[in-house]
Amino acid sequence: MTRYDLALIGFGGVNRALAELIAGRGDALEAELGFALRVVAITDLRAGSLVRTDGDGIDLAPLLAVAPGELDFSAMDGGDAEPRNEWVIREVPADIVAEATFTNPMDGEPALSHVRWAIEAGKHVCTTNKGPVALHCRSLRELARRHGVCFEFEGTVMSGTPVLRTARRMFGGLAVTGFEGVLNGTSNYVLGRLESGLSFADAVAEAQALGYAEADPTADIEGYDVQLKVMILANEVLGAGLTRADVPCTGISALTAEDVRRAAAEGLRWKLVGSAARRPDGTVEARVAPVALPDGHPLAGVTGPVNTVAFHTDLLGTVTVGGPGAGRVETAYALLSDVIGIHEQSGRAVAGAKSLQEAHRG
Amino acid sequence: MTRYDLALIGFGGVNRALAELIAGRGDALEAELGFALRVVAITDLRAGSLVRTDGDGIDLAPLLAVAPGELDFSAMDGGDAEPRNEWVIREVPADIVAEATFTNPMDGEPALSHVRWAIEAGKHVCTTNKGPVALHCRSLRELARRHGVCFEFEGTVMSGTPVLRTARRMFGGLAVTGFEGVLNGTSNYVLGRLESGLSFADAVAEAQALGYAEADPTADIEGYDVQLKVMILANEVLGAGLTRADVPCTGISALTAEDVRRAAAEGLRWKLVGSAARRPDGTVEARVAPVALPDGHPLAGVTGPVNTVAFHTDLLGTVTVGGPGAGRVETAYALLSDVIGIHEQSGRAVAGAKSLQEAHRG
Repeated sequence: MTRYDLALIGFGGVNRALAELIAGRGDALEAELGFALRVVAITDLRAGSLVRTDGDGIDLAPLLAVAPGELDFSAMDGGDAEPRNEWVIREVPADIVAEATFTNPMDGEPALSHVRWAIEAGKHVCTTNKGPVALHCRSLRELARRHGVCFEFEGTVMSGTPVLRTARRMFGGLAVTGFEGVLNGTSNYVLGRLESGLSFADAVAEAQALGYAEADPTADIEGYDVQLKVMILANEVLGAGLTRADVPCTGISALTAEDVRRAAAEGLRWKLVGSAARRPDGTVEARVAPVALPDGHPLAGVTGPVNTVAFHTDLLGTVTVGGPGAGRVETAYALLSDVIGIHEQSGRAVAGAKSLQEAHRG
Repeated sequence: MTRYDLALIGFGGVNRALAELIAGRGDALEAELGFALRVVAITDLRAGSLVRTDGDGIDLAPLLAVAPGELDFSAMDGGDAEPRNEWVIREVPADIVAEATFTNPMDGEPALSHVRWAIEAGKHVCTTNKGPVALHCRSLRELARRHGVCFEFEGTVMSGTPVLRTARRMFGGLAVTGFEGVLNGTSNYVLGRLESGLSFADAVAEAQALGYAEADPTADIEGYDVQLKVMILANEVLGAGLTRADVPCTGISALTAEDVRRAAAEGLRWKLVGSAARRPDGTVEARVAPVALPDGHPLAGVTGPVNTVAFHTDLLGTVTVGGPGAGRVETAYALLSDVIGIHEQSGRAVAGAKSLQEAHRG
């Protein structure tokens, strides 16, 4: 049985939910997927670091019994009060580094360094962190190629909804000419509540109370979160090399509740749309802006916190993929789907190696 | 370069569109996908059969220049006035048989025999034919396993929209608990036109004029087409062993235009929904019936001829995949995606064989 040793970098909601999945259904996953998962290291800004590479690795159940804010690795066997990210990523023997620290849209740090260190150490990386992927995907992919490891990031767009992997693996032989997406659940929820008659401030407050919006909702409301996702999708699906400056961004605060209600009365629904399209000269044009969509548009019926991306293709016309845009379990599943992707890619190498062994034996 | 030799069984709209793709962009596909396609046999009820296994195989351009109804293989080199399906499928050396004859919902014939003959002859099969897949998927899959070949049928549900392949390859580690789908474009188009105020008869006539509905629209309107797709999806995604008798079926003719308009005024949209769900005891319950969906339901915004399936899962909640439900080019793409799937699956064997050769050489 193949086993992958994981190092979890950042132990907030997402990696904690991944640990819960491994602790709670690791055996079932092993039976279904054909590989076992063992967590050998965890680092966290507040809790410090914990390393156990012997036996079953880190015993997750006791950690998960402690409330997130109260976790302290320093007194544990193999623990330290410091996160020691660089040392853990570079030196602790692990097969896969799962990076789930906070997104920094300016320079991608410190996640960018975490990803680089892991790849340089010959470890596969999966991350839910939009920063390094939006800003440095091409160079990180090239670095991964040189080191013969996988760099996976399904969770950076629409949490565990298989958007990037669908575009990468289900569209062979098609030309994708562009896409439009409702890629932020908070802003979409707010727009729906404006249609229902709430004021902008009340709608945002409600989204915060429901856990959709952060304490500071700026990135959601002003479109900056969508901007990063458009960069990731455009760079991945259309091969564009977009920077933030290439993606003009207008958020929904440009709209009034009255605008939204009046449009709804005319059968139009305002959505915050992130889009990109290939120009005739081959370059890619992208933007984030509110758009009043008519009934029948593939994104018009996307309501509440749901996200959907509509890919425009030559042979199939428009193909949509919809699902949760956020959520800790949903995003943890993205990491699990990345691990499955890593297993499938390295599985071929394993199959080749097995034939080799059999040939040597024969 | 790997090359796959194809035998096209049935040369109606779909396989003709596949031939157009191969003739028109075979080189581009070869560069992108890493394999070449050569058509070595075509059979058709009206045109007869044509076999060319030398050189570049069948020269497609002259065939495609002839109007579909006027094609006659009998006078051509390698041609015969008879389709000779069994002989062609069993005896002509080909790697993949692309079966695209008409769907027979009663016993699946003659497509069922076509698929069996191909598998028994050690050939991979891809088909867009719902009959054999809905009625005999389990036994055909088992037959294919025993003969070491692939049995692919993406085009049986939502043409080339990657629904079956998404469920099979993108949901690892998830439990799919059920699905609901708008799986027939004709009936969905008709329902939309009833909302706009048309009578039932006028809406059906319009769908026929637009090419969405067949001359006899019974299978679309009465839900029988959706019933087959529900069986395929439920058997494939939920491991159910459903027969037609297990899927009660009510079509949209049970609705009046007035029902649809009144619901629309209340914000409800009637859709013909094919659904299945796992019961607590593990068995699967399925049905086809019109349902009045509220705004916010993932299928409520599916308009016109578009199809969408909403998969219900444990970790991700609802994930939707939408796209074209029919169309000759769209369905031909399904066959191409099946060939890509066959290539990926046999690619591993090839990688193994290559390692073997290298080991022998080394």
